[in-house]
Amino acid sequence: MNSLPRVGVTLGDAGGIGPEVTLKALAQPAVLPPAQYIVFGSARILERESLALGLSPAFRPRRTAAPGEAGLFHEDLGRGPEADVRGRPDRANGAASFLAFETAVSEARAGRLEAVVTGPVSKTSWSLAGVKARGHTEYLETFFPDAIMCFWSETLRVALFSHHLPLREAVERVRKDRLERFFQVLGRGLAQLVSGRAFELLVAGLNPHAGEDGLLGNEEQNEVKPAILAARAAGVPVSGPFPPDSVFRQALGRPDRVAVALYHDQGLVAFKLVAFEVGVNVTLGLPFIRTSPAHGTAFDIAGRGAADPRGMVEALRLAVRSRPA
Amino acid sequence: MNSLPRVGVTLGDAGGIGPEVTLKALAQPAVLPPAQYIVFGSARILERESLALGLSPAFRPRRTAAPGEAGLFHEDLGRGPEADVRGRPDRANGAASFLAFETAVSEARAGRLEAVVTGPVSKTSWSLAGVKARGHTEYLETFFPDAIMCFWSETLRVALFSHHLPLREAVERVRKDRLERFFQVLGRGLAQLVSGRAFELLVAGLNPHAGEDGLLGNEEQNEVKPAILAARAAGVPVSGPFPPDSVFRQALGRPDRVAVALYHDQGLVAFKLVAFEVGVNVTLGLPFIRTSPAHGTAFDIAGRGAADPRGMVEALRLAVRSRPA
Repeated sequence: MNSLPRVGVTLGDAGGIGPEVTLKALAQPAVLPPAQYIVFGSARILERESLALGLSPAFRPRRTAAPGEAGLFHEDLGRGPEADVRGRPDRANGAASFLAFETAVSEARAGRLEAVVTGPVSKTSWSLAGVKARGHTEYLETFFPDAIMCFWSETLRVALFSHHLPLREAVERVRKDRLERFFQVLGRGLAQLVSGRAFELLVAGLNPHAGEDGLLGNEEQNEVKPAILAARAAGVPVSGPFPPDSVFRQALGRPDRVAVALYHDQGLVAFKLVAFEVGVNVTLGLPFIRTSPAHGTAFDIAGRGAADPRGMVEALRLAVRSRPA
Repeated sequence: MNSLPRVGVTLGDAGGIGPEVTLKALAQPAVLPPAQYIVFGSARILERESLALGLSPAFRPRRTAAPGEAGLFHEDLGRGPEADVRGRPDRANGAASFLAFETAVSEARAGRLEAVVTGPVSKTSWSLAGVKARGHTEYLETFFPDAIMCFWSETLRVALFSHHLPLREAVERVRKDRLERFFQVLGRGLAQLVSGRAFELLVAGLNPHAGEDGLLGNEEQNEVKPAILAARAAGVPVSGPFPPDSVFRQALGRPDRVAVALYHDQGLVAFKLVAFEVGVNVTLGLPFIRTSPAHGTAFDIAGRGAADPRGMVEALRLAVRSRPA
């Protein structure tokens, strides 16, 4: 690995705020750590957005980058949406945002990027463009079935045991073997993400009050607790299960603690309440780091220049700070 | 109804912080609206706590209260725990806190109180004392099966469709008929609680992204949406279902909005993150108002004089402000 990481950056859906927050973030070299930032996407969209925002960061062609050289680079993917559809899902925008993501991931899988930072995509645009994956994480799961969705901020950090499943299926998913493997993959991924600093996993129960000794459900006793004990025995710093309505408070404001949610909304209700604007979505369990702002395409404010780039700034910072295996 | 409401107040478990926060709250007449506050409990505990805190609000015997007279009164229940067990569950404390609650509820059912405000009890103490109910709300449900658990604060207001059920059973509970009745009872209860001001119910979905048009579960289409439409047709101001991870943000800081959670942790993860210290637990669907601080007995800090009475103050204010049918 080079001492300065190579970070692939995608603009996201050109009809949303992705290109805007990416440009705004990359135009602030003072707030970003040194790295080789390589934007994957259409040169036309990049120019359109720079012009609209009055920002002129200079991108050099990627092929001119020396190994380990810091700066802003651009990999022109040679095609892009021909019309400027903004504020709604669009087939051409979907095809372009998927091509950029697919290419960056392929480069990362080949070991030519240490990290991929993605602008928000529209899954409706992807679907219109015939893309099968429902989102970034689902696409990554096709190569890396152990991929784990995490949400990261100064205030709160949350890892999701399952994400886009009906709640009924998410309940069935809570099984000892699968949980134990999840804790181990998560433990390894976090060690890389936090570059060796100490951390602690606090696991939520599935049921109210974490089952209250079996009175309110037995998954804690039969599945969650045994998995935690097995993972601890294997060296993962994990404890619980704790009552779901207190575990996120326990992790709040404690950068060394990561709350583990057993299903999508247990974690995301908490995270979105306290850290929406500056939150980062992180995928662990990959051979590279992948981050993204936690917000979406925000079609309703696209093209107005009013989007807040803090989520993208934090996504870039976290990607550079991390050290993949 | 008298123009000044009669509010029964219980001290909660004498081994926890209930007596302390109750005394601290009642000793601040400037922050409480005028009402006839009647403490149900042991005179000995009341004296012990006043002495320990250096507070001396004067309680007069309840029988001396003139109709509609404001002030602090006391109904001595004639017995109480003989030993001062603090900081842990205890049979005698459980028996005393249940007797006080049972008596206050009985007075309210008989129409001699307009509201009951309860100090936090220990369900382990109740269990040691042979009490069958698991908590205040469960006891009330034996008389009023439509009782609804809500959590109230300036920041956020949440109503729970179900509370102490295993998550698996809570999912099964999500059925159109039951939901429709719930929305109607909740709508009536809220109209009383907010004394006729306008309000809006925002209902969370059960599944991630509120099921995403059936991709992530079908309870929204088959059960929740039809129940909402039926309740709207009957005049209840209810809308949704909304994605669970955004609905609490939509209700945040909007005093006219109440978020409806379909299960315990969906609502309580949100509420406890943003409004723990000042939160109030409210039971609706009763012929009287019942409130309580949202916090528990806090055995770990009992007897130190350090407990924060704001939750109890808000519980008393909300009880007095409301106008039961």
